Amino acid sequence: MLYLKIATPPRWLQQVQEHLEEILIDHAHCEKKAAGTAMNLLFAYVENRELCQAMTEIVREELEHFHQVLALLDRRGIRFRRLSPSRYGRRLNDLVSKQEPARAIDRLLVAGLIEARSCERFDLLRRHVPDRELAEFYNRLFESEARHAATYVRLAHQFGTASRVAQRLQELSEMEAAIIQEGEAAARMHS
Amino acid sequence: MLYLKIATPPRWLQQVQEHLEEILIDHAHCEKKAAGTAMNLLFAYVENRELCQAMTEIVREELEHFHQVLALLDRRGIRFRRLSPSRYGRRLNDLVSKQEPARAIDRLLVAGLIEARSCERFDLLRRHVPDRELAEFYNRLFESEARHAATYVRLAHQFGTASRVAQRLQELSEMEAAIIQEGEAAARMHS
Repeated sequence: MLYLKIATPPRWLQQVQEHLEEILIDHAHCEKKAAGTAMNLLFAYVENRELCQAMTEIVREELEHFHQVLALLDRRGIRFRRLSPSRYGRRLNDLVSKQEPARAIDRLLVAGLIEARSCERFDLLRRHVPDRELAEFYNRLFESEARHAATYVRLAHQFGTASRVAQRLQELSEMEAAIIQEGEAAARMHS
Repeated sequence: MLYLKIATPPRWLQQVQEHLEEILIDHAHCEKKAAGTAMNLLFAYVENRELCQAMTEIVREELEHFHQVLALLDRRGIRFRRLSPSRYGRRLNDLVSKQEPARAIDRLLVAGLIEARSCERFDLLRRHVPDRELAEFYNRLFESEARHAATYVRLAHQFGTASRVAQRLQELSEMEAAIIQEGEAAARMHS
């Protein structure tokens, strides 16, 4: 699916079943972080007009999703609180080059891969969660995460040739797959 | 005006007259930074629902203004580019306490003072700039900056008593006035 090398292992749906509350709270934080990532990219490449326009739209949508998840938590009587994040995002960000323009490509591709993985997990949730409200919610979010993933990968082409981007996407998606294969003990959206 | 202790010295309008392009470019950066500040506050105090809601609205509005200034630059054939920022924001942020909850109060009040100063300057611009399009533009932005200033000061009361907030606002606004009185050589929105 999208740019991903492996499907989520079945173990994750087990985590969802056993720790749904935690996953939902973590999801709210993920939406917030997605907005923050887009804002950071806007700051870093502010002279790139197309990027700024796209990041502005992503910030707006992700903050809207953040509030939608908060409202969903409210309806279920779940208190939103801080939660230790999964190591997934940090491990991917550790792969980002320090040198421009490779750095821009990496940051955009990593953001795209995270959106792609969220998208793949929303697809699993909409198909496997027995709760109708949740299934419909993830169905609505699915489309926008897929769009964001494509936007990030498209923008990466502003900073390097198509073959350079394709090669790096190949490398990063393999590393992403290895992180997902390994998994994490704490139940999170990207565990 | 608002929480400000002194009016902008006449010297600033002289800078506007002589370096309008630079001021307009800096204005775009200021709108971007205002969005970034609201995003940072959302991240720092994410468990405060009222603050998160207010910051989300400010992020959205400031990014919209950012694009409006970029469009205005385009119409005038001015190339948007990086610009060394004025020292104003950094000097104010240096005054922020390191300890919570004093830190939250300080961050919100400093953000409020910056919005108040922008508002005061937009008022000067709308009244003194001979260019009709610009005057109307600053007239439209004036109201929202005033609203943001009030929002920040109101939110500060969630982190301390009214007298604590009033006292700190008094101190910070005096320091803000001293920075403005001093001025800066480079023409900026807050020089």
